[in-house]
Amino acid sequence: MKKEEKNPTVKPELLGGFKDYLPETMIPRQGIIAIIKKTYESFGFLPLETPGMERSSVLGSDKNDFRMQVYRFKDNFGETGQDVTLRFDLTVPLSRVVAAYPNLVKPFKRYQLGSVWRKEKPQAGRFREFAQFDADIVGSDSILADSEIISLMYETMKNLGVINFVIRFNNRKILNGLPNVANFDEKRAADVFQILDKLDKLGPEKVFEELQLKPLSEFDKEALNLSDESVAKIREFLAISGDLESVIEKLKTFFNGVALAQEGIAECEQIIENIKFLGIPQENWKFDLSVARGLGYYTGPVFETTLSEIPEMGSVFSGGRFDDLVMRFTGERVPAVGASVGVDRLFAALEKLGKIKKIQSVSKVLLTIIDERYAKDIIKMAQGLRNVGVNAEVFLGKDRSFKNQLAYALKKEIPFMIILGEEEKKQGMIKLKDLNRREEMLLTENEVIDKLI
Amino acid sequence: MKKEEKNPTVKPELLGGFKDYLPETMIPRQGIIAIIKKTYESFGFLPLETPGMERSSVLGSDKNDFRMQVYRFKDNFGETGQDVTLRFDLTVPLSRVVAAYPNLVKPFKRYQLGSVWRKEKPQAGRFREFAQFDADIVGSDSILADSEIISLMYETMKNLGVINFVIRFNNRKILNGLPNVANFDEKRAADVFQILDKLDKLGPEKVFEELQLKPLSEFDKEALNLSDESVAKIREFLAISGDLESVIEKLKTFFNGVALAQEGIAECEQIIENIKFLGIPQENWKFDLSVARGLGYYTGPVFETTLSEIPEMGSVFSGGRFDDLVMRFTGERVPAVGASVGVDRLFAALEKLGKIKKIQSVSKVLLTIIDERYAKDIIKMAQGLRNVGVNAEVFLGKDRSFKNQLAYALKKEIPFMIILGEEEKKQGMIKLKDLNRREEMLLTENEVIDKLI
Repeated sequence: MKKEEKNPTVKPELLGGFKDYLPETMIPRQGIIAIIKKTYESFGFLPLETPGMERSSVLGSDKNDFRMQVYRFKDNFGETGQDVTLRFDLTVPLSRVVAAYPNLVKPFKRYQLGSVWRKEKPQAGRFREFAQFDADIVGSDSILADSEIISLMYETMKNLGVINFVIRFNNRKILNGLPNVANFDEKRAADVFQILDKLDKLGPEKVFEELQLKPLSEFDKEALNLSDESVAKIREFLAISGDLESVIEKLKTFFNGVALAQEGIAECEQIIENIKFLGIPQENWKFDLSVARGLGYYTGPVFETTLSEIPEMGSVFSGGRFDDLVMRFTGERVPAVGASVGVDRLFAALEKLGKIKKIQSVSKVLLTIIDERYAKDIIKMAQGLRNVGVNAEVFLGKDRSFKNQLAYALKKEIPFMIILGEEEKKQGMIKLKDLNRREEMLLTENEVIDKLI
Repeated sequence: MKKEEKNPTVKPELLGGFKDYLPETMIPRQGIIAIIKKTYESFGFLPLETPGMERSSVLGSDKNDFRMQVYRFKDNFGETGQDVTLRFDLTVPLSRVVAAYPNLVKPFKRYQLGSVWRKEKPQAGRFREFAQFDADIVGSDSILADSEIISLMYETMKNLGVINFVIRFNNRKILNGLPNVANFDEKRAADVFQILDKLDKLGPEKVFEELQLKPLSEFDKEALNLSDESVAKIREFLAISGDLESVIEKLKTFFNGVALAQEGIAECEQIIENIKFLGIPQENWKFDLSVARGLGYYTGPVFETTLSEIPEMGSVFSGGRFDDLVMRFTGERVPAVGASVGVDRLFAALEKLGKIKKIQSVSKVLLTIIDERYAKDIIKMAQGLRNVGVNAEVFLGKDRSFKNQLAYALKKEIPFMIILGEEEKKQGMIKLKDLNRREEMLLTENEVIDKLI
């Protein structure tokens, strides 16, 4: 064996579909996260943290394996190992928490920020690991809760400094009336909605084609094979338009006699009333019958948020009501509603819109080391500055030429430099260089602190 | 098939070795994380984020599989799938980043907070998923960098309000002199240090026994089988004591002629000089020859932090110098030093010491709904409060009896309640209830805002 083979160098490569956030983008990303957190807390949502992996039975991996493309494997716990899945969202873990801790005070309003993993085909803006930032209200079936979630979505986007966005909403109860009116099998409703959810991406013709796909064989259970009449009715439904009031009236007629759909329409009316009363600008929301949401677990209102300048990025903040999700564990219905920011997609969108300013450093001052003899004075001075709240960085590189230390400060966009050479030391003074104003001052240590604080 | 079997309820159980943070503990946990972050930033460390999983080759899983008990599996990428490992620390990913982005300005000072996963045997304070909060300086071989890390550890613990802690440090270069003086195989040095690392946990007798274990067969490559003479020398080494100066003198004699160990001793002297100059209290640090750190990659100073009241919890903040870790990728030596807070262990320790106060809510005021007719006024008022920075929660539960809403506020320890009934509405006023002072006020909306802001 050759010696090189024994100790080959490893390629420092990421897995496909994963990404790093270097400091220059991580700093603004943290800023976005802080704004979302602050907004969530202003509504009284409280933080929760759950593990990155759970029992596959808890996450319902058998059912979700295909749709979600989950990461699933066996660990080595006990004799046979456990069947484990990396979480693919934060909503199913929330429902597990609600079931596992029956003493949680209800309504339980929690937020959670965390990575989720899906084996999706990597593509622009789509990753196999991405952070979600969820807020949910568990234990309230009041339509006020749904209205609060829309209000939360609006305030969050506003606080993020985004102006051109639309919160589009619909109601699953209305959609659930479709099989009845358009005469197709109720059991296929979820599959139909999943296809309708692609309207934005594929356009109507492709979608209607997909709804009418004929089975390839008698064993093909996937193809929906809707009749021309059914598709005509769905087209009629999606074509309902006009001002808000007339849309509501047309819907009431379209779903005449379908109780669940009428309930959904009434809920939309209440939400619209609340949104208007809150003064959420007309251009930032839309009652939109084409919003379906792919996920199977929604039972009432559903929400999406698109950025008007780049709708092709898809929804950056989505959610809905999921009254049946806790039932899997407890057998009892626990109403719940919430929404989730796709942090990485939102960040990618804001980056594309030129709204992300890269930031090179958080240091206010670089303490240079010009003369090794005074290195101890420098780290002591840094300690003093930090203790009064100034972010103070000591230059720790090998090349201590002034030129190199200056280059470091400039590249990192650190606004001030401290210099302590023989001259300054003799006078008991410190040189403070203001890199923005391009000026130097000879100051005492206390004056430096006053300047930087 | 019976109907129940078709839709069985699932147990809402966690995997063994994993845990939830409910809001009451998550809120103080976030507080701890915020303090660490602020301290790290005060030193000029910048945030980095890397994926939860990496190529197994990148993490060196073959080598670490046994020691770290890593989670390793195949994904479905490409035709054959990729060999994937969940990260078991944040240091190896950092070294991958440094190799992958050669243009990063050096020294590169980064912090990273993230979960890591190890298939350890679950036990008190030990989890299979736990958060680490690392700070590292890459690209500096100056002993000032090592001193800054110790200073960082001290300031972090101090800012966390911990008083009784000891930062214990040693130097791998000194330990690496042991094979020479104690006459054992250099190649087994890492294994010897891993056993010495258990001194705290097992006590000296067990450790020395383990060092002398005889092989079970000729194929047993694990047993160290050190001679009586070797162990006697190691005992002599660990018995070196006295005041700092005399320990240094004794070490110099003990390692007479062993160049690397002398270098390590000199580094310790410099670190001690710097720590003293910074005024870090004598009781918060200790030059301790028994500190070895289990990990193989350390090359110079090593650090540990134990809480004096519960040393049995082990180190909560550890690190060291790892000059060779980037070399795996680039073939070039990149000096680096850093330390890592074991966030979950630290939290468990502080909990045990009674230093964690559970917090039930972040809301300043609960806006009750007493009269359905004024629900819209209530959500509008909440909106107004939030917009001036007051965390304002609307009661969204089903049972809107005053008693129940009061009970909610009390359980959540929300200090104020807003009440808007027919009486108040008629007068154009709002009732504000101060639950701490147990008093009620009838105020205008602006007065309420002034009170709560």
